[in-house]
Amino acid sequence: MSLHIHRLVIVGTGLIGGSLALALKQAGMVDEVVGLGRRRETLDQAKALGLIDVIAGSPAETGDADVVMLATPMAQMQSVLQQIAPHLGEHTIVTDAGSTKRDVIAAARELLGAKFSRFVPGHPIAGAESSGPQAARADLFIGRNVVLCPVAETDTAAAETVTALWQGTGAQVVRMDAARHDRIFAAVSHLPHLAAFALVDDLAARPEAEDFFRYAASGFRDFTRIAASHPEMWRDIALANREALLAELSAYMNKLGEIASALDKGDAAALEQVFSRASQARRNWGTK
Amino acid sequence: MSLHIHRLVIVGTGLIGGSLALALKQAGMVDEVVGLGRRRETLDQAKALGLIDVIAGSPAETGDADVVMLATPMAQMQSVLQQIAPHLGEHTIVTDAGSTKRDVIAAARELLGAKFSRFVPGHPIAGAESSGPQAARADLFIGRNVVLCPVAETDTAAAETVTALWQGTGAQVVRMDAARHDRIFAAVSHLPHLAAFALVDDLAARPEAEDFFRYAASGFRDFTRIAASHPEMWRDIALANREALLAELSAYMNKLGEIASALDKGDAAALEQVFSRASQARRNWGTK
Repeated sequence: MSLHIHRLVIVGTGLIGGSLALALKQAGMVDEVVGLGRRRETLDQAKALGLIDVIAGSPAETGDADVVMLATPMAQMQSVLQQIAPHLGEHTIVTDAGSTKRDVIAAARELLGAKFSRFVPGHPIAGAESSGPQAARADLFIGRNVVLCPVAETDTAAAETVTALWQGTGAQVVRMDAARHDRIFAAVSHLPHLAAFALVDDLAARPEAEDFFRYAASGFRDFTRIAASHPEMWRDIALANREALLAELSAYMNKLGEIASALDKGDAAALEQVFSRASQARRNWGTK
Repeated sequence: MSLHIHRLVIVGTGLIGGSLALALKQAGMVDEVVGLGRRRETLDQAKALGLIDVIAGSPAETGDADVVMLATPMAQMQSVLQQIAPHLGEHTIVTDAGSTKRDVIAAARELLGAKFSRFVPGHPIAGAESSGPQAARADLFIGRNVVLCPVAETDTAAAETVTALWQGTGAQVVRMDAARHDRIFAAVSHLPHLAAFALVDDLAARPEAEDFFRYAASGFRDFTRIAASHPEMWRDIALANREALLAELSAYMNKLGEIASALDKGDAAALEQVFSRASQARRNWGTK
């Protein structure tokens, strides 16, 4: 399928939205990119950087777009959907780049009404320690996974368009059920972030904090890197995926309790068993 | 202080012992490096790689050494101390490179008798995802911290010799109390390793494990890197530092419980507070 988009509206012109615009421009797949957002400064910066061609004056300007990409923080998804819903054209496809999917689907189903069939839920798996328009890169999605979670109502052609759009950036598109998506990312993304935040907050509050950071080495550096992530963004992701994340947190705390109990008893065999399984699994993954 | 060592015995010619030998040779600080160890294959490899000059036939050959460096896995420290104790010369200084200090000090105090005053407990903070003689590098310790934990009985000149030895490798030498050392490294090294082992073991055992690893991204990669570490080595470190590590595990589980409770209640402000403090602390550290 060869895709050409006349008018692409990007709501939220930061790392993800900006990189998508750059990649599609570089692929010659889009004529005009329109930026929409809350902060004029961000939009001006996105325009100056060549990420977008035009700044939309209001949500009404999404009306004649072929595709509207919602690349805003999770907390704004609902209000953006509300604002654009009345203006969306008959054939406009809406998609998103949010880190959780069940909550966005529920909001879109409620707010888009009959137009919900042209909403294609998506999640590009592209790391984002940096953020903002200046962090955008045309090659951000090359070789990355993009998960799409179409539901029963989703229009087949709309899902195919969004698939082709992401493939145009060099990404691999995978489809899966939204509940499965949310479970997987609770485990491999949301839980590790919480675990890293917890460790750093725990240590930073101690009287010995300065010593801790002074003697911490490369293992600590890697383990806690994600604790530098954006606090509000992760607050919103955690709340949006609360149910799956609580289950993961509980399983993780059980495993830590198991290790603490083995350590308390001096049970060397039990410790070695956990460490060996983990080490083997991590090495297998590392070489894939 | 200018140090020249005539005869250096290294017990355990792997990454740490081998790198120390290479660094001191490069600095012209040692005439002869003698390797001692359990496995003939490792010693042959260390000799072939030029890490050591001579392979010791037995622990008796430590007798006329200026310095004996114990760079074996933690679990072997006790038996090595036992084997070398009767042979140590009047002026031979013994030091170690173990990751925990109170347990090694207790073993040395018991096994070295009157010669305990010439035992200088040490810990080079140099990452060790790789291991074995082939991983040894002359520059491993440049700019790294080496912690020495002399006790009341420790001979001042012996501590100065070991200080000069490590400084000769390009390391910074810091002295601290052994209990403080063990607390600090329980927090910034041993706990993160256990936390990473726990997460990977938890996920690897699930029916969805393949999906988890398939969609895991760079954040997960960094967070779990240390879970690939050597299981037996970490079993021994955990047991050697059991008391301090149990306290850290407990504090960490409390913090995770606090986050789980805030998440369960949908308390956005509490989540943001933890994440913000952690993010700020990690960013501050990262730029130091």
